[in-house]
Amino acid sequence: MRVAVVGLGTMGAPMARHLLEAGHQVTVHNRTREREQPLAARGAARAATPREAAAAAEAVLTCVSDTPDLLAVLEGEDGAAAGLEGGGLVVDCSTVSPAETTAVAARLAERGIGFVDAPVSGGSEGAERGTLTVFAGGEEADVERARPILDAFSGRVTHLGPPGAGQVAKAVNQVMIAGTYASVGEGIALAQAAGLPADALVQALAAGAAASWVLDNRSANMIADSYPLGFKVGLHRKDLGIALDEAARHGLALAVAQLVAEQEDGLIADGHGNEDVSALARVPR
Amino acid sequence: MRVAVVGLGTMGAPMARHLLEAGHQVTVHNRTREREQPLAARGAARAATPREAAAAAEAVLTCVSDTPDLLAVLEGEDGAAAGLEGGGLVVDCSTVSPAETTAVAARLAERGIGFVDAPVSGGSEGAERGTLTVFAGGEEADVERARPILDAFSGRVTHLGPPGAGQVAKAVNQVMIAGTYASVGEGIALAQAAGLPADALVQALAAGAAASWVLDNRSANMIADSYPLGFKVGLHRKDLGIALDEAARHGLALAVAQLVAEQEDGLIADGHGNEDVSALARVPR
Repeated sequence: MRVAVVGLGTMGAPMARHLLEAGHQVTVHNRTREREQPLAARGAARAATPREAAAAAEAVLTCVSDTPDLLAVLEGEDGAAAGLEGGGLVVDCSTVSPAETTAVAARLAERGIGFVDAPVSGGSEGAERGTLTVFAGGEEADVERARPILDAFSGRVTHLGPPGAGQVAKAVNQVMIAGTYASVGEGIALAQAAGLPADALVQALAAGAAASWVLDNRSANMIADSYPLGFKVGLHRKDLGIALDEAARHGLALAVAQLVAEQEDGLIADGHGNEDVSALARVPR
Repeated sequence: MRVAVVGLGTMGAPMARHLLEAGHQVTVHNRTREREQPLAARGAARAATPREAAAAAEAVLTCVSDTPDLLAVLEGEDGAAAGLEGGGLVVDCSTVSPAETTAVAARLAERGIGFVDAPVSGGSEGAERGTLTVFAGGEEADVERARPILDAFSGRVTHLGPPGAGQVAKAVNQVMIAGTYASVGEGIALAQAAGLPADALVQALAAGAAASWVLDNRSANMIADSYPLGFKVGLHRKDLGIALDEAARHGLALAVAQLVAEQEDGLIADGHGNEDVSALARVPR
């Protein structure tokens, strides 16, 4: 398949690499253009703009940082939508607003362009290994067209409803991990303050109701008080903002997610925004 | 081994049953004495007081609801300590204050009686199946003496330090599950408000960073808005109080645990204190 990849950050770059390895014809574009070079060395074509990248492709995969960036690379001057022909497809792996996603999908549909929101979970490790979980929203036919692309870097693609449903699912994911990271961090802080052997404790905790991916994969870094990526605090805070907005649209107040968002604001203000989300373990110390 | 079991609640009764099935000679006592009958029917002796139960035993297993109850059954009039001879052993599976545990262990040690704090995780299902996780505190020799008792109902006994260490570990467990239950509940509430297919979403979430025991074992009840036990909100709230006190003793503020404690106070005030902790999913609805 001819696929354009726009946005070659921590997630987009390994996605493009997996697409190349799966045998797709890949054209890449990134705002900071040097990031295209390692992929060009692996066989990708380079394009000067999202529009130019899209013109060479049947489908455009976008993976950018926030809602305004998505609107710019799709619908801005030299945006990808202008380069796609009718019948084309946009697959967006960014984490952005569900409401804006629904709106942009409707505008693209008027021009005969399909849209699938396909935000991912699994972090930078999952992207590198090609084992991301995809939460997909879109028309059934569009999701089926997107599958060969998504399968290149995902171990699991779940179609959850119309355009926007994938973004709501990702928002749910970010809400659930918020309290889990924070609580595991609080527990580790208490264990260390009381002088317990943290490694043995984590093994015991992992056998019971406190078991979680966060405990399994992030407690060792919390114990070491060291927070390599993973997934940045600043990006999780952005995602929590999206989730809290979506919750408010439905009249829900999510008090734990709100509290964790405030804790992350504090971490960012203290210069920890580029650390992994597990840096929430700093808060109670 | 001759074992007295004092406290035959949701946890203590199946523990006594597993001890009988493992071939121990068991004497039981419960404040509400009718609760002794099903165990007597299985071969347990009955005792009118903790002291009388202890007099027939090499070791006393206590499983009561709170710190004052433990002090009463051990050191009150007709308490178990008065019935035990020097060289005897107390194994406490209650969840109580780490500081009080350290103090009572020291008082028993002066009388030549060993003490192991052995709070458990795994809930009523784990007690029924005999697969509880035990967090043990105590002198090495005492923990070894307690193992044949604990092995009857536990799949994993982890010795974490001197008397009190088991209770701190349990406090850590209760802190970690607090935010996890609350966050899974917030996520489920958001998913349902937005009209996502919750069962498919949970399967997708469980493959990524949101994976947890709570998601695996309690999200279906949250989706159904039905909260059978499990583990009571009221007891988890009591445990969070112990954990927050222990944290404060070390100068730590655990903001998420504190928030969840307040949410549980609200649930209890609204008449939901006897539901499972997963009733935290009621809060954002």
